[in-house]
Amino acid sequence: MLAALRCHARPQIVLTRHLRSRRYASTIKFDFQDPLSSKELLLPEELEIQETARAYCQERLLTGVLDGYRDEHYDRNILKEMGSLGLLGATIPTHGCAGVSSVAYGLIAKEVERVDSGYRSGMSVQSSLVMGPIYEHGTSEQKDKYLPLLRDGVMVGCFGLTEPNHGSDPGSMETTAKPHPSKKGFYSLSGAKTWITNSPIADLVLVWAKLQETGKIRGFLIERDRCPPGTLETPAIKHKNGLRASITGMIHLDDCPVPEENMLQVEGLKGPFSCLNSARYGIAFGTMGALEDCIERARTYALDRKQFNNPLAKYQLIQKKLSDAVTDAAYGTLSAIQVGRLKDRGMVAPEMISMIKRQNCDRALVGARALQEIFGGNAASDEYHIGRHVANLFVVQTYEGQSDIHSLIIGKGITGIPAFS
Amino acid sequence: MLAALRCHARPQIVLTRHLRSRRYASTIKFDFQDPLSSKELLLPEELEIQETARAYCQERLLTGVLDGYRDEHYDRNILKEMGSLGLLGATIPTHGCAGVSSVAYGLIAKEVERVDSGYRSGMSVQSSLVMGPIYEHGTSEQKDKYLPLLRDGVMVGCFGLTEPNHGSDPGSMETTAKPHPSKKGFYSLSGAKTWITNSPIADLVLVWAKLQETGKIRGFLIERDRCPPGTLETPAIKHKNGLRASITGMIHLDDCPVPEENMLQVEGLKGPFSCLNSARYGIAFGTMGALEDCIERARTYALDRKQFNNPLAKYQLIQKKLSDAVTDAAYGTLSAIQVGRLKDRGMVAPEMISMIKRQNCDRALVGARALQEIFGGNAASDEYHIGRHVANLFVVQTYEGQSDIHSLIIGKGITGIPAFS
Amino acid sequence: MLAALRCHARPQIVLTRHLRSRRYASTIKFDFQDPLSSKELLLPEELEIQETARAYCQERLLTGVLDGYRDEHYDRNILKEMGSLGLLGATIPTHGCAGVSSVAYGLIAKEVERVDSGYRSGMSVQSSLVMGPIYEHGTSEQKDKYLPLLRDGVMVGCFGLTEPNHGSDPGSMETTAKPHPSKKGFYSLSGAKTWITNSPIADLVLVWAKLQETGKIRGFLIERDRCPPGTLETPAIKHKNGLRASITGMIHLDDCPVPEENMLQVEGLKGPFSCLNSARYGIAFGTMGALEDCIERARTYALDRKQFNNPLAKYQLIQKKLSDAVTDAAYGTLSAIQVGRLKDRGMVAPEMISMIKRQNCDRALVGARALQEIFGGNAASDEYHIGRHVANLFVVQTYEGQSDIHSLIIGKGITGIPAFS
Amino acid sequence: MLAALRCHARPQIVLTRHLRSRRYASTIKFDFQDPLSSKELLLPEELEIQETARAYCQERLLTGVLDGYRDEHYDRNILKEMGSLGLLGATIPTHGCAGVSSVAYGLIAKEVERVDSGYRSGMSVQSSLVMGPIYEHGTSEQKDKYLPLLRDGVMVGCFGLTEPNHGSDPGSMETTAKPHPSKKGFYSLSGAKTWITNSPIADLVLVWAKLQETGKIRGFLIERDRCPPGTLETPAIKHKNGLRASITGMIHLDDCPVPEENMLQVEGLKGPFSCLNSARYGIAFGTMGALEDCIERARTYALDRKQFNNPLAKYQLIQKKLSDAVTDAAYGTLSAIQVGRLKDRGMVAPEMISMIKRQNCDRALVGARALQEIFGGNAASDEYHIGRHVANLFVVQTYEGQSDIHSLIIGKGITGIPAFS
Repeated sequence: MLAALRCHARPQIVLTRHLRSRRYASTIKFDFQDPLSSKELLLPEELEIQETARAYCQERLLTGVLDGYRDEHYDRNILKEMGSLGLLGATIPTHGCAGVSSVAYGLIAKEVERVDSGYRSGMSVQSSLVMGPIYEHGTSEQKDKYLPLLRDGVMVGCFGLTEPNHGSDPGSMETTAKPHPSKKGFYSLSGAKTWITNSPIADLVLVWAKLQETGKIRGFLIERDRCPPGTLETPAIKHKNGLRASITGMIHLDDCPVPEENMLQVEGLKGPFSCLNSARYGIAFGTMGALEDCIERARTYALDRKQFNNPLAKYQLIQKKLSDAVTDAAYGTLSAIQVGRLKDRGMVAPEMISMIKRQNCDRALVGARALQEIFGGNAASDEYHIGRHVANLFVVQTYEGQSDIHSLIIGKGITGIPAFS
Repeated sequence: MLAALRCHARPQIVLTRHLRSRRYASTIKFDFQDPLSSKELLLPEELEIQETARAYCQERLLTGVLDGYRDEHYDRNILKEMGSLGLLGATIPTHGCAGVSSVAYGLIAKEVERVDSGYRSGMSVQSSLVMGPIYEHGTSEQKDKYLPLLRDGVMVGCFGLTEPNHGSDPGSMETTAKPHPSKKGFYSLSGAKTWITNSPIADLVLVWAKLQETGKIRGFLIERDRCPPGTLETPAIKHKNGLRASITGMIHLDDCPVPEENMLQVEGLKGPFSCLNSARYGIAFGTMGALEDCIERARTYALDRKQFNNPLAKYQLIQKKLSDAVTDAAYGTLSAIQVGRLKDRGMVAPEMISMIKRQNCDRALVGARALQEIFGGNAASDEYHIGRHVANLFVVQTYEGQSDIHSLIIGKGITGIPAFS
Repeated sequence: MLAALRCHARPQIVLTRHLRSRRYASTIKFDFQDPLSSKELLLPEELEIQETARAYCQERLLTGVLDGYRDEHYDRNILKEMGSLGLLGATIPTHGCAGVSSVAYGLIAKEVERVDSGYRSGMSVQSSLVMGPIYEHGTSEQKDKYLPLLRDGVMVGCFGLTEPNHGSDPGSMETTAKPHPSKKGFYSLSGAKTWITNSPIADLVLVWAKLQETGKIRGFLIERDRCPPGTLETPAIKHKNGLRASITGMIHLDDCPVPEENMLQVEGLKGPFSCLNSARYGIAFGTMGALEDCIERARTYALDRKQFNNPLAKYQLIQKKLSDAVTDAAYGTLSAIQVGRLKDRGMVAPEMISMIKRQNCDRALVGARALQEIFGGNAASDEYHIGRHVANLFVVQTYEGQSDIHSLIIGKGITGIPAFS
Repeated sequence: MLAALRCHARPQIVLTRHLRSRRYASTIKFDFQDPLSSKELLLPEELEIQETARAYCQERLLTGVLDGYRDEHYDRNILKEMGSLGLLGATIPTHGCAGVSSVAYGLIAKEVERVDSGYRSGMSVQSSLVMGPIYEHGTSEQKDKYLPLLRDGVMVGCFGLTEPNHGSDPGSMETTAKPHPSKKGFYSLSGAKTWITNSPIADLVLVWAKLQETGKIRGFLIERDRCPPGTLETPAIKHKNGLRASITGMIHLDDCPVPEENMLQVEGLKGPFSCLNSARYGIAFGTMGALEDCIERARTYALDRKQFNNPLAKYQLIQKKLSDAVTDAAYGTLSAIQVGRLKDRGMVAPEMISMIKRQNCDRALVGARALQEIFGGNAASDEYHIGRHVANLFVVQTYEGQSDIHSLIIGKGITGIPAFS
């Protein structure tokens, strides 16, 4: 066996020797913003996309986020601007979309969420939850009609799955679709959806409903401006504890007529679930941006703020908080890149998505909370931004699968036994 | 900017489209033993090396570990067997060593530590802390003389850095080397080292001492059988709380004569620290093996053991523990692979090593402890192995840099400010 | 020795036997609202005070808290109403104050904080940080003049210690008092204080400043309506992340003239610190009210909300969160009662206050956060109240000694060694 | 309402004023060994009992514990010595037992567990699990026959409830009792029990079995020396991970004949459960002793051990660990005293016992583990004692209701919904 091992190792020897010489040629400096050099795993075009997204987010989004958050105001021009940069539906390879890798999509999410999880939510919904299912499950006509408009952000979409009484368990949904009693070639949809990002401003409302004839879940693309008055209402939910820079609402459907040709070509929960996997992937990647922003801000504060004649950054209890958060950011980013690569190779299992969605959300939240302590009393001021991230990240942890639900999805993957109920 | 993004993305489109078709061709099943498909990052020869190591460890080491642990007995033939398989000093590209990648070395560590952290410790010391410094800092004569013997495990080495009064702060060491008063061409070494893996059975004792003439720390290779009686004693430390399957001892030097030509060609703490980085890298990788063994055993127990008419695996509180541990194992393995690749490309900063050593040790320990709870009262029996892993992992967390010390090393990397004292 | 033990035990025997018979006469039902029967430790009048406070808080404060929190509005009539009930300065035994025990004061704080930590903050400042120091360190004239007005809430006070650059380290304050250059019998105060609860609405501003002549810290009672324009400004701090139902501001002093007779009769940091101990005691007790409200609301939600055909309350992961929080509420309440009793007997050490302030704040925050997860997506709505408690409790954890600072105060108490810097 | 409050408060005023004068008469020093002055809650005779127990444990037990733990040896003379001091069955008010309060019993447990949880286990079993049920459910004859012998420790008892396949769910036990086929007036018992403290040395084996005739669980007192050969075997379980200073074994019953008059007068699970409540109470109190010993040792080590020119005790990360553990010890002790008082007044609900058993075990374990880190590499030596406490406390956390099971008992108490299966 010894022989075999040594034999196989031979080409390595050369490689190793070569690298070894390089090792002594350079002193590597630790970079807290990319502690485990994840950028070495990125393609040049991915780095460039990240740079594009970052520049836009820092220059355009950051300036307005405090006001947007205070006033619970979301400017739909943001989607237009993102669209003009090619950031919407970016993984779609057709219809003029950018056709980038999942990792590139994750990097976009990260840069947007570095500013605010709410802005990332708005982008995620448009890209993964509206454009995604249309691309995956739409007819050619649906794709040709909607994708270009959504891509450019001139049409805003939303995704209606969660119902007031069915959060973690969408299979029990109560919204129904049945042949319209009076309009031929139309379905009639009735029911209610809640916590729907972008619903109050959406032009295109994707609603998942149980088709009465089959009992199966189907997706419907509802164009707001073709709905008779009173059949589609999308009131905003105000006074949110987090994600206040994004807009959230309900969807009330009351015998809303939807043309048959607006039904998606997929049956059952796998329709919404496949898009959710993409959205969750974006969340897993995106939260690392929020965490990194917290780290950056906490570090700066700790270096600038002096107490007992030392900068806070000199205190062990402060350094521990920074070390923990930086570690989690590094680990979370590596895992998101890995799953992105697997995703593009068709090798991703849903449990992997659950794992990184859960872990990265959990750790981003824990990290942001710990870093918030560094600011002491000043953390109470929203101008330090960290309180906003903390509030946002809590919501992000609960949506698209609350942390515990993902624990049980992973648990089922490990044991083969469902423990949801 | 839009144009640029879309343009760069073009080659991606093709790639993405190709992969997308593959996605629907296969259903990916979640594998709790490699949850994020880290094996996709390994070269074929690395997988083969892992397989070789795994077979040996499971067939040969596992069978004796309970007795070894109970009796605090370490069989030095283990090193000979490892040597015959090419597992010792495996990253060294000369002197008949395997010359494998750092990742391959990590995989060997993982497979050994899957059985017992103590066995991995014995291997780490020989490879990273004895062969490593000789390869890095030895003269040609030293290399030619010692590396082949150490490689084959016929000579056992140990590494003496830590002193009774100086654990986390080796720069304050008290062991000294001065010109021997009576033997020309010899240094005389005096001092004490403690918690030295393998010292009681070592043939070659590498000791770090302050050279009286310069005040600088230097390394000395002491051949036990050339030491006059009473000048080198290596009593074993018994009644350990963990790592009982490995052997640990002290080193007492009393005017021990060491030939000048046995001094290593490196000055200062960078001598021991560069080897420690390799050893710590192996620990970071290795602990994931111990954690995976805990997962495997806890999962099996939870599936087999019934309480209240259900297997334990059906309970949410059990599934949460499993999910947490599996996630940490997956993340820890990815980070170890990443750092290994960087290491071989000369791109590793010491803080990266601190980060993965700290995090993987911490999480392995936390995970093992949580999984131990699954065994209920039966955890108290050593036949379930998990208590042994828990006890081992605590020690592993403290050695080669206690977790808090690494927090501060990382903290210094982040803030630029030392907070050690 | 046996004899002695048995002998001493004799009176116990009777007691025990008597009780034992009672044990079988009654079945004790577990009460999650008072899990360890802390009410058995309360005097009848204390229970009555709690009842009075609770009725007021639930009937009057709860109804307005959502609006107050949303709009960052604090109604100063609240203090008048509390005053009319005898809830202000309640431990003071003179000047018509209630003269109740520290435990009774804690119970008042608990009932107020059950509604909102901000309302409790407003009450704490008036009682512990303004009336307290006047009662402890004021002249007879000061007491007679201010205590009755403060007691009734017709005069509102605030407490200015923290400065923009000196949070955890008030000894480094920069605010100074010196003989007024032009007004005889007056001091001139200059400096800035920040994060001062009630400052924008305060009639009486207690400011701690360094007396130029001695370098010692002294307290000054500044009547707003006697300050020349421009010498005292108290701008509100808006856009807070928490405690939005209370009002917070800065204090800017610019050669503000203060009559000599308005100086308190205490020198050095022990002046503000003795009051802080009382305020912190109230916080330790009060946070248990916020935590209990979270428990009550989360439990109700978990019982009402069904997912996967079961109420959430049936799920193990939910029950664990509830069990943890209920345990912390029970333990925290016991400890607060104990310290209150010791306080009234003159047996309290400052470290005890640090211990319960730190632990109860920490655990209330951890508990509230965990319970918030039970609400899933609905937690984002402020109508469930829990998000407000979470945001408040974070601020409460940081003020009047951030958690880590109290760790170090306790640490110094344990080891005798200061580790603040 | 104001009037009422002030009126009620009047007697308090006097009290408060009196105390207040005392406050300034004395400076209270923080005592890390009793941080919240729990001793103020103890009666003089309870303090004396604690002193008696402490002196014995420190003088007699501590000296042998290392050897006992290393060799897995338990000296049954320990029980005789405890008996001679009146420490066994101490709450029983008859048959020459001490008849002390539950708190006094808890203090005894605490002093014994300060040395070793295994010694406390041996004492707990004798007192709470053998003498307890005989006193509570025994006939006069049983009491008169066994209690004096058990009280003096000349007879050793054990308690057989847990079975190999039924740990957390004793209601599913398989051990049966049926009329003996050949010996009139005898039952025949068959089955197996495991993890039974003291079983290998027990003279009196209390076994819980299902009575075949009724299907109800009944308790049987089996005198070892009256069992025909082969009908009762109690092999020791060796190679334990913790509690090695106590002796643990199995009970194998093979048609073991037991006289009818040796059956206890209680039916169903309430028989064993009422005793378990007492035992668990002792555990909740006792673990605080182990934790306090860890604190004491870690503090001493941190003060003595210097690194980077300072005692470890000067480092913030060390002080935080100490602060946390000291806080948990203080809170846990208060809660145990409170429940003890309630217990003696017949006011204890089982959920209270679950709460303090769970919480105190959990926190003792967490605290001990964190403190163990202070010892760095030296923690691996058993001579620092802390590794032993850590290993013990893990077992204590799992026995007599694993932590999670108690979470669910508490959860059921809170929600009314069982979630065990």
